[in-house]
Amino acid sequence: MKDEFADARVLITGGLGFIGSNLARRLNGLGADITVVDSLLPDYGGNRYNVEGIGDRLQINISDVRDTHSLRSLVQGKDYLFNLAGQTSHLDSMLNPMPDLEINCQAQLSILETCRVHNPKIKIVFASTRQIYGRPDHLPVAESHPLNPVDVNGINKMAGEKYHLLYNDIYGIPATALRLTNTIGPRMRIKDARQTFVGLWVRQILEGQPISVWGGQQLRDFTDVEDAVDAFLLAAASPATNGQVYNLGGSEVVDLTSVAKLMVEVNGSGKYEIRDFPADRRAIDIGDYYGDFSKIRAELGWTPKRTLRETIESTLHYFRDSMPHYL
Amino acid sequence: MKDEFADARVLITGGLGFIGSNLARRLNGLGADITVVDSLLPDYGGNRYNVEGIGDRLQINISDVRDTHSLRSLVQGKDYLFNLAGQTSHLDSMLNPMPDLEINCQAQLSILETCRVHNPKIKIVFASTRQIYGRPDHLPVAESHPLNPVDVNGINKMAGEKYHLLYNDIYGIPATALRLTNTIGPRMRIKDARQTFVGLWVRQILEGQPISVWGGQQLRDFTDVEDAVDAFLLAAASPATNGQVYNLGGSEVVDLTSVAKLMVEVNGSGKYEIRDFPADRRAIDIGDYYGDFSKIRAELGWTPKRTLRETIESTLHYFRDSMPHYL
Repeated sequence: MKDEFADARVLITGGLGFIGSNLARRLNGLGADITVVDSLLPDYGGNRYNVEGIGDRLQINISDVRDTHSLRSLVQGKDYLFNLAGQTSHLDSMLNPMPDLEINCQAQLSILETCRVHNPKIKIVFASTRQIYGRPDHLPVAESHPLNPVDVNGINKMAGEKYHLLYNDIYGIPATALRLTNTIGPRMRIKDARQTFVGLWVRQILEGQPISVWGGQQLRDFTDVEDAVDAFLLAAASPATNGQVYNLGGSEVVDLTSVAKLMVEVNGSGKYEIRDFPADRRAIDIGDYYGDFSKIRAELGWTPKRTLRETIESTLHYFRDSMPHYL
Repeated sequence: MKDEFADARVLITGGLGFIGSNLARRLNGLGADITVVDSLLPDYGGNRYNVEGIGDRLQINISDVRDTHSLRSLVQGKDYLFNLAGQTSHLDSMLNPMPDLEINCQAQLSILETCRVHNPKIKIVFASTRQIYGRPDHLPVAESHPLNPVDVNGINKMAGEKYHLLYNDIYGIPATALRLTNTIGPRMRIKDARQTFVGLWVRQILEGQPISVWGGQQLRDFTDVEDAVDAFLLAAASPATNGQVYNLGGSEVVDLTSVAKLMVEVNGSGKYEIRDFPADRRAIDIGDYYGDFSKIRAELGWTPKRTLRETIESTLHYFRDSMPHYL
């Protein structure tokens, strides 16, 4: 990876966010020349503290992916675009659908048009999501599973992903989409459940509150953020990924109650409470989900390296010291 | 149908367009109270002449579905929304993708939000398209076929359709989507191929020019506009269609050269020329397509009643007199 990314000119949208900032940290270690773009919208994942310690080695550009003018300048001269900016809250996408459409759909098309005109050789890796599958017809879910999103966020992310593949196929702009599942790790949003419910759980347990588990029986898979970063770099480095989509996944499939139990155990104290789903969240819940990631394992050799326990350990360890920067 | 639509308060977006105006004519005959909304954008299907003779029995509201303010007033108090406004040109969606997104994606979400807030009982029938399937994996194409759109138009129409189904499922706003294939008949756009290539063929043959057939071997199905109108009314009248999608189809499956031959034969004169696809159109061509419409036949008793020959006859008959209003 050192050869691939040393001195590479890299643009990361959502680069002050959870996955974006962890990716920036890794790329900084590999010697890349990094520009991060982030809007720092308060309800989203961006946080200046996420680049604490490496901030002077990045170009930090505060702008919104909906701003076509800033993107036009920023994509020029770049080798890679890690396109991670997005609205991630399923519930917010229902309560206020237009910003989700503008960011996850319209801005994506605009970014691709900008690349087509100003930098058609840029390699793009797009952060898609398993949310576009909706309620699984069968498990595990492979990339060929029908796309039946159950919320506005899922529909818009589906369109955003399809634009990337289209611009690859029609215009030859090399683009790959990774369908992420729940990603966990240091620098995630913990103020609330907008990024993932696990973020809120981290806050609850570290504040000595009981973890609120809705339902509890739902099966899920989880990806350690360092494993997710591996996948972004592998996808970027391989031209064979152009025009392809890949599921990520986790080393274990667990129900939510077990995740809460494990979190209490790793923390050494705390408790959890099983609660009924609120109606608005139940309506858009997808039931059980876990992904089949055999495609990316076969083609890129990617596999989750961290156990869920290790991921929870590193996450709690990080936030024990850093929590004030995230509230 | 008389019982269902007599005095029904009906809103038709794209109501001065090809299918919308034929639907308005039929509903007028059934005694409905009709409001048509149309933007009359020059490159689209709207044409005041399409309601010649019935214009004084309609409320004609010139506004754009992107204008959320006008829609807010117009959806109130209506029983039915036939939602046909759309950008239809596949090529335009590639050359200028943002208006396609605004109309086929953003405006659709906005219309649904407006219905949710101001008239959640309105029954909506949405004009979707077989374009969302992309290049068929197999033929005929049923509703369960994967959605792999090959152009920006197809991606945006897919999102537009999914929003309708979502608002049905989550908010109980009764909505149905019809996936239209090539629709032909009086009042279609013939100035160019923006609506369908057959429109341009009609113009060419009536002007004494050779019909330009690109490729020629591609298989297609065609729906007579009166059959399409039947489907919209049947879907609107049946609560069993809520949350469902239905393919339409045609009475025959034919290759394009045969359609051109049939048109020359019905016209009594003329000729056609086989031409190579231009590169920009080839890139987004879907190859052979014909739909499996057994679902709507089984559930609603819909079936195409007109042969392709009859459809071409009625179309040429109409435009022989009316062509000047369409150029």
